[in-house]
Amino acid sequence: MIKERLKELNMILPPCPKAVGVYRPFLMEGDTIYLSGVLPKDADGQLQTGKVGHEVSIEKAQEAAQHCAMNALSILEEACGLDHIEQIVRVVVYVQSEPDFYEQHIVANGASEVFASVLAEAGSHARSAVGVAALPLNATVEVEVTAKKK
Amino acid sequence: MIKERLKELNMILPPCPKAVGVYRPFLMEGDTIYLSGVLPKDADGQLQTGKVGHEVSIEKAQEAAQHCAMNALSILEEACGLDHIEQIVRVVVYVQSEPDFYEQHIVANGASEVFASVLAEAGSHARSAVGVAALPLNATVEVEVTAKKK
Amino acid sequence: MIKERLKELNMILPPCPKAVGVYRPFLMEGDTIYLSGVLPKDADGQLQTGKVGHEVSIEKAQEAAQHCAMNALSILEEACGLDHIEQIVRVVVYVQSEPDFYEQHIVANGASEVFASVLAEAGSHARSAVGVAALPLNATVEVEVTAKKK
Repeated sequence: MIKERLKELNMILPPCPKAVGVYRPFLMEGDTIYLSGVLPKDADGQLQTGKVGHEVSIEKAQEAAQHCAMNALSILEEACGLDHIEQIVRVVVYVQSEPDFYEQHIVANGASEVFASVLAEAGSHARSAVGVAALPLNATVEVEVTAKKK
Repeated sequence: MIKERLKELNMILPPCPKAVGVYRPFLMEGDTIYLSGVLPKDADGQLQTGKVGHEVSIEKAQEAAQHCAMNALSILEEACGLDHIEQIVRVVVYVQSEPDFYEQHIVANGASEVFASVLAEAGSHARSAVGVAALPLNATVEVEVTAKKK
Repeated sequence: MIKERLKELNMILPPCPKAVGVYRPFLMEGDTIYLSGVLPKDADGQLQTGKVGHEVSIEKAQEAAQHCAMNALSILEEACGLDHIEQIVRVVVYVQSEPDFYEQHIVANGASEVFASVLAEAGSHARSAVGVAALPLNATVEVEVTAKKK
């Protein structure tokens, strides 16, 4: 049971993110679940903001990536239940970066490690990490996930 | 009939975008239609350019996002006919942003609302909105769409 | 045989990229192969770096895009063999751009042309090209590929 693993890891799923526009938090098409981009809100609803480099440290940015991953898991729990996820397939990590910050892959590991520790092999995925000029609400990281259910 | 709905909405599909490189405007693989990124050209072929923030207003950017969505619909009409679209599945909205503009999700609503008003439930989708440094031809918005046909 | 075509074209596949984080170079889900973002390393492992515009010329950036495509082919060769690729389906080309560089589609052609010359019709794809503020390790280009196997 994934819920027991979350408890062991002392991880609490945040409330499932609501769409902040005319779209859906996720769309299921056959066995594929496409998630909308998720932002780094913690379990209290606090959003991590700022650009990575001088303003936000790499450690803080990894934490933001972890929060994004937790929000994605929260959506997957609502979509079909985490125990029915066969595989996290594809992850894109958008890091709100100052133009001279080049460690987006290190930041992205924050998200990848959450998927791996909660879902084990089912959490292993293909990934792109890129640095973008700006993100909605000044979010430090945005993560887009595609998954397959059993 | 979607064509009648377009007429009621007073919306005219622009000419189907041509690929401006060695790729295709869309690729159908099984029932999935992958669209190339579309730019905000209006029905007269005029491209909306500039970065959102001080140079381009949020209202103008939303208009650009609407034009992108209309171009995507024009490709889907050519690909299989809008009446045969089962679902707009996934939408990525790249907003050419000044580094201190953080309302990409508001801009993206311009595209999402077009899909919803033309296709109703079939237009509802998962979405990511990000702010990028620069786009081809200085376009204000670029939209990438994945859809399923019936 | 694709290997013979590579020889005719005088193209040498680089060593298959290793994941530089807790993710996989590719993930196969049914017949779909999702590749992680690939960076422009040449056959000697040298990475092309810098932002396109004043620092890096458009010609150099096209070369970087070619290297990305060669690395993607190298992953596909490892995943299932290039002879078993039915179609390159979707390509996203992230170009590390100065804010006033607007020819990302021209840069992206470097990648698209590699897929077309090596795989012929099977190399034709849907594509998005965007300009981003920064990429991992200061890479000039990052390319994300989705493919289908036979």
